[in-house]
Amino acid sequence: MDPIVTLTTDFGEQDWFVGAMKGAILRSCPQARLVDITHQVPRHDVKAGALFLRASAPYFPEGTIHLCVVDPGVGTARDPVAVRLGDAYWVAPDNGLLSYLLHQAPAFTAVSLAGWTKNASATFHGRDVFGPAAGALAAGRALEDLGPFLNDLLRWPLAAPQWKHARCKGEILHVDVFGNLITNLGRDVEQAVRDHLRRGGEILWHVGKKDIPGLCQTYGDVSPGEPLALWGSIDFFEIAVREKSASEFTSAKTGDPVELILLPINGSKGV
Amino acid sequence: MDPIVTLTTDFGEQDWFVGAMKGAILRSCPQARLVDITHQVPRHDVKAGALFLRASAPYFPEGTIHLCVVDPGVGTARDPVAVRLGDAYWVAPDNGLLSYLLHQAPAFTAVSLAGWTKNASATFHGRDVFGPAAGALAAGRALEDLGPFLNDLLRWPLAAPQWKHARCKGEILHVDVFGNLITNLGRDVEQAVRDHLRRGGEILWHVGKKDIPGLCQTYGDVSPGEPLALWGSIDFFEIAVREKSASEFTSAKTGDPVELILLPINGSKGV
Amino acid sequence: MDPIVTLTTDFGEQDWFVGAMKGAILRSCPQARLVDITHQVPRHDVKAGALFLRASAPYFPEGTIHLCVVDPGVGTARDPVAVRLGDAYWVAPDNGLLSYLLHQAPAFTAVSLAGWTKNASATFHGRDVFGPAAGALAAGRALEDLGPFLNDLLRWPLAAPQWKHARCKGEILHVDVFGNLITNLGRDVEQAVRDHLRRGGEILWHVGKKDIPGLCQTYGDVSPGEPLALWGSIDFFEIAVREKSASEFTSAKTGDPVELILLPINGSKGV
Repeated sequence: MDPIVTLTTDFGEQDWFVGAMKGAILRSCPQARLVDITHQVPRHDVKAGALFLRASAPYFPEGTIHLCVVDPGVGTARDPVAVRLGDAYWVAPDNGLLSYLLHQAPAFTAVSLAGWTKNASATFHGRDVFGPAAGALAAGRALEDLGPFLNDLLRWPLAAPQWKHARCKGEILHVDVFGNLITNLGRDVEQAVRDHLRRGGEILWHVGKKDIPGLCQTYGDVSPGEPLALWGSIDFFEIAVREKSASEFTSAKTGDPVELILLPINGSKGV
Repeated sequence: MDPIVTLTTDFGEQDWFVGAMKGAILRSCPQARLVDITHQVPRHDVKAGALFLRASAPYFPEGTIHLCVVDPGVGTARDPVAVRLGDAYWVAPDNGLLSYLLHQAPAFTAVSLAGWTKNASATFHGRDVFGPAAGALAAGRALEDLGPFLNDLLRWPLAAPQWKHARCKGEILHVDVFGNLITNLGRDVEQAVRDHLRRGGEILWHVGKKDIPGLCQTYGDVSPGEPLALWGSIDFFEIAVREKSASEFTSAKTGDPVELILLPINGSKGV
Repeated sequence: MDPIVTLTTDFGEQDWFVGAMKGAILRSCPQARLVDITHQVPRHDVKAGALFLRASAPYFPEGTIHLCVVDPGVGTARDPVAVRLGDAYWVAPDNGLLSYLLHQAPAFTAVSLAGWTKNASATFHGRDVFGPAAGALAAGRALEDLGPFLNDLLRWPLAAPQWKHARCKGEILHVDVFGNLITNLGRDVEQAVRDHLRRGGEILWHVGKKDIPGLCQTYGDVSPGEPLALWGSIDFFEIAVREKSASEFTSAKTGDPVELILLPINGSKGV
């Protein structure tokens, strides 16, 4: 079967950058099948790119090669790298783009592609380094063959939710195109919330200047224009407003705090 | 030959939604060839999505699988469906997206994909239901195997042009990205117009507050900035302004009325 | 190996145009592999389209078929053409889109596709002429088989840099999505600049109302917000502002003049 190479960049589609990079992949591996994930990662926003990869790459088949270029440091000291992680391959700058994925599946093999920059332009490593390296993997070259091993990759500490009694403080990881607020409150918090609800407790979300009660299954559980909290499709709690923007409703944006409160259960003294 | 799966959604390309759905298709059928039609159907605009499908799907080869997700009702009672219609397959919510196509080729076989929603997220059926179902078809599973038969599919009555003497009332189906107004005046009306013109008659189009005479072959028949009516590439009459927006010129938008008048032929008493 | 067909248009992605054209290619050649270069060439901007082709097409493998539709003259006298040039094929309107490529590799074989317009719609040759012709080439039909030979193709004279003593006048070819100014000062000028710098000379760039000294390797050589000149990735000098728009900084736009000055070397009387 022909190899799959996915593309995730912040290049936009208004210039030749994506086209030249696709050409460079195909020149190295003419039978590669290219799959655009997005070229609209917000410009230079490595954190958003990292979240997009976490939310889409795991759905691809085993052996997929993911080419990811959100690279504000092009031409500086950051290494270009090729990585095997889980059942897939990544070709990217070593700038934290893989942080979420490394957190989920910490075992990896990585090599430096620094040797590939010798004849590269100073400003377009997507075409001159990352594309050809992804093409080489697609053409069957071994990862180990592309450069010297690296012991570690740059990764940020992922902001963990902070519990204090019955309150949990988190943050907004991302505002999606619909204005939904994706929080960093994940599986662990979900367990606590579901336990509390099962025991008859109520919950409250505090975001921006708004208080939003309860937990819904889906947008249709509230009227258009009403806010809600729900367990989102990428395994984090999300704050939404049906058919509107929760970001506008709450004035909250990426990086802002969110607080979850498990309200005291009637006749009890709290959680 | 590897199966073709086209994608038509209102997801936009600024988030991970398209990428995750593509992954889900490829995980079910790694050899599928994905072809983006558009991810920029206006948000939740099922009618625009339906028109886009009518205007592009018929050009694809026999056996193509069309995945269409414009789904304002995700998480509500509408069924996800898989459909064989003409020489192709469709996977979509049963919300009228196929109305035009059903009108043109009324014989179909449809099955419900309701059984596929059991382990699905509440908010992302593109990834959890439609993508995997399209992948299953691409991998060679029989349509009949995907769920129980459905006797009917939701379809809107298509607004038919209304003749009254020598006047025909229709409506604007869509304003395209150039500002061209695509009307619902199709083949039948074309016949009447061409007959009238052949007999030496003149015609007038009334849209918004503007009167536009005659019928042109192409934009080049008028000067830049001038309005014209022409027979469009998807078999409806269109109102355009050369190198400008007819929507701005006429102030007309989707759903607005358009009127065609067959002017009395000299010495006759009308049509 | 399945044939590769790239797509470069100004159709945008908000309507069915790209989808219908892709269908038309695949109906002629179901095994074609479609690769989007961009559908966001500025509307009707043949010069920008020509630059995008020059900047991306050469990176694709031998035998690639490039479908290029930026066609303000659809429905007028310009010929649709199919061309073999270098190691690749082009299908496009004969309106100058190939000017840069013809300049670089002047030997070509071209045929007219005028015969393909007979049953075509008047307004959508992408679907009815260019797509099917690209599909025919992908399916293995000989170029010579598609229409009568053409002796020449439309090409603009490329504005050559003008030297006068130690000053070189050029122009801005394109403002990219980041606001970088791509000039027409290419390889020849590069040689003169590098010679001058090697001899200890200094240089100055005059763009809009701004003077920008020196030559940098990459954006990281200056502080954020500072302007710089650098040798760009498509072999022209570029004027940039780190993490900002050089177009805003200089008020320069496509077509504006740019001047390079080789400053007199200390103790010498100029170059």
